[in-house]
Amino acid sequence: MEDSGSPAGATADISVGNRGTRLIAVEEAFSIPEIVEAAREQTGGRPSMSSGPIAGPLLGPLLDLGPGRIAAMDAAGIDVQVLSVSAPGVQHLRPEVATPLARLANDRVHELLSAHPTRFAGMATLPMQSPADAAAEVMRAVDELGLSGVLVNSHTEGRYLDDPRFEPVLEAIVNADVPLYLHPREPSETLAGAGIPGFTVGWAYAVEVGTHVLRMISAGVFDRFPDLRIILGHLGESLPLLLDRIDDRYRFELTAVGGAPLERTPSSYFREHVWVTTSGMNFAAPVRAVVDILGPERVLFAADHPMEDQAAAAAAFRALDLNPHERTLISHENAERVFGLAPAGAAPGHERND
Amino acid sequence: MEDSGSPAGATADISVGNRGTRLIAVEEAFSIPEIVEAAREQTGGRPSMSSGPIAGPLLGPLLDLGPGRIAAMDAAGIDVQVLSVSAPGVQHLRPEVATPLARLANDRVHELLSAHPTRFAGMATLPMQSPADAAAEVMRAVDELGLSGVLVNSHTEGRYLDDPRFEPVLEAIVNADVPLYLHPREPSETLAGAGIPGFTVGWAYAVEVGTHVLRMISAGVFDRFPDLRIILGHLGESLPLLLDRIDDRYRFELTAVGGAPLERTPSSYFREHVWVTTSGMNFAAPVRAVVDILGPERVLFAADHPMEDQAAAAAAFRALDLNPHERTLISHENAERVFGLAPAGAAPGHERND
Repeated sequence: MEDSGSPAGATADISVGNRGTRLIAVEEAFSIPEIVEAAREQTGGRPSMSSGPIAGPLLGPLLDLGPGRIAAMDAAGIDVQVLSVSAPGVQHLRPEVATPLARLANDRVHELLSAHPTRFAGMATLPMQSPADAAAEVMRAVDELGLSGVLVNSHTEGRYLDDPRFEPVLEAIVNADVPLYLHPREPSETLAGAGIPGFTVGWAYAVEVGTHVLRMISAGVFDRFPDLRIILGHLGESLPLLLDRIDDRYRFELTAVGGAPLERTPSSYFREHVWVTTSGMNFAAPVRAVVDILGPERVLFAADHPMEDQAAAAAAFRALDLNPHERTLISHENAERVFGLAPAGAAPGHERND
Repeated sequence: MEDSGSPAGATADISVGNRGTRLIAVEEAFSIPEIVEAAREQTGGRPSMSSGPIAGPLLGPLLDLGPGRIAAMDAAGIDVQVLSVSAPGVQHLRPEVATPLARLANDRVHELLSAHPTRFAGMATLPMQSPADAAAEVMRAVDELGLSGVLVNSHTEGRYLDDPRFEPVLEAIVNADVPLYLHPREPSETLAGAGIPGFTVGWAYAVEVGTHVLRMISAGVFDRFPDLRIILGHLGESLPLLLDRIDDRYRFELTAVGGAPLERTPSSYFREHVWVTTSGMNFAAPVRAVVDILGPERVLFAADHPMEDQAAAAAAFRALDLNPHERTLISHENAERVFGLAPAGAAPGHERND
């Protein structure tokens, strides 16, 4: 299971095999110096929640795409990281730089995958400001670069994926047969009230992405794209607990205010199209609740490196009270299936689901 | 346990006793014709989510403070309703009508309590637009009218309870030694994006009230009012599932953006000051999750009559997989304690906790 091409892997204190079940972590961040520099230029060097980590202690681990990253994975007992550019990707940058920077980031992931095919997979960063560019990049990233999914950091210039302008991107994602990871970023203006200092990540992120998914359901996006697969971090951004109530009130409310309801219940779209990950939520009671509500087939492990300590996240995950079937699914089998990753021991590389 | 003063109670098909454990439902709505009329005048007769039900099938049950209400409680096996004016109370009305209408509504509850002391308790409606009036009404409602709590429908003119203008109201609530039920209404402008048609109740309400509570924690309201008790409906408006993550990210985020964190973790305020009810959420997995996360001492039954079918809500609650200790606490003992209600068989009336 270890990558013999990784010197760090060969010298890790504890071999991955000793930790038991294969562990694939699916929301693991990196960045590239060129994106950091562009964000710095655009903000005049002032770091903010919305410009991404352009300074501070996370920058080093984010930029590390070398032996240090692999050594940290080995120390944590994480076999595979599915990589993505840290939020908000390139979605906060000027369109003319966003497109080339997205391509550059995706190329860098491709280089890393080529060097360490058993240790990494990647999700494409997309210049959502320019939907045609984003759609083209989906195809290039999957077909030419071997990436296994795309990650979108919620809104782009305040627009959500129910906006018709993004239909070409969704079409490309479905055609490429890869999942779309919907990751948080600072809320749009219309949800700014959720941005309480100290609670942006813990609360406003869930409000932003929860609203995003419900907008997609409400607008019939999943009727138009019946093969679209969405992944949400943070155990589904609080939606799993609310599904029954959302269903219960949906028809009642649309009837009261006047509106044509969808043919199906909101939760049926969620249960069919959405997978959730444990990123930032490797806590016993919430994981148990969400596994019980959605079923173990719908939950994937994630650590959220380096925003969280991946060793602590992996240890917390291993300590969860899951039965062997649930553990196998959540630790790696669901990730292999949803991202089309090769199982351990198989020939590496992205496998199309078709 | 049955109120012999209620003819309906005497003729109910199934006596309350046969249903087992005493059931107190704590988020049960009513209205009075004068409030309906004032809302109608203000909106030109057009019903909306924000003006409350001034028309439609709910209006009849809301206005019924007579034998029909008691008969429906008996049929549902609900022993006690803790009453409150349906959202948004009088908080959407012009200040000059809000204050007298709040007093009138509270007087009507007092009349009902006097007639049927074993079947009802009440929470005061407050004219939050006029904090001095609201504070005075808290004292009158508890001391003179025998009400057992107050209910505030989240924001008032876009302002939340972390606004210093409301400190006299909070002070009165603490002095009166009653709980404050924080009920949803349509989100304020700063959270308008959560208001997706069909998902206002299921989602935007949780966003609105969840944000409200976190604003109170963040602003140190519970440090200034260490005896303030808050009740949240809908199993805590999605916050219980997020508490661990909120704690985990709180210091990290305040350190990153620069800010002085509270002495304690956000969740410690929540666990000490907040009780949650099952209103609109009498579903097996969410109740199990929240009982496990907060403990059974923190959960109270509610039906949300007439927004929900109280017979269905009570039946769903009875079908939940709770152990006898949990069932006793959640069905009535927690309500007796938090609202200071007389236990079954004791002399009726509001009991001060001091």
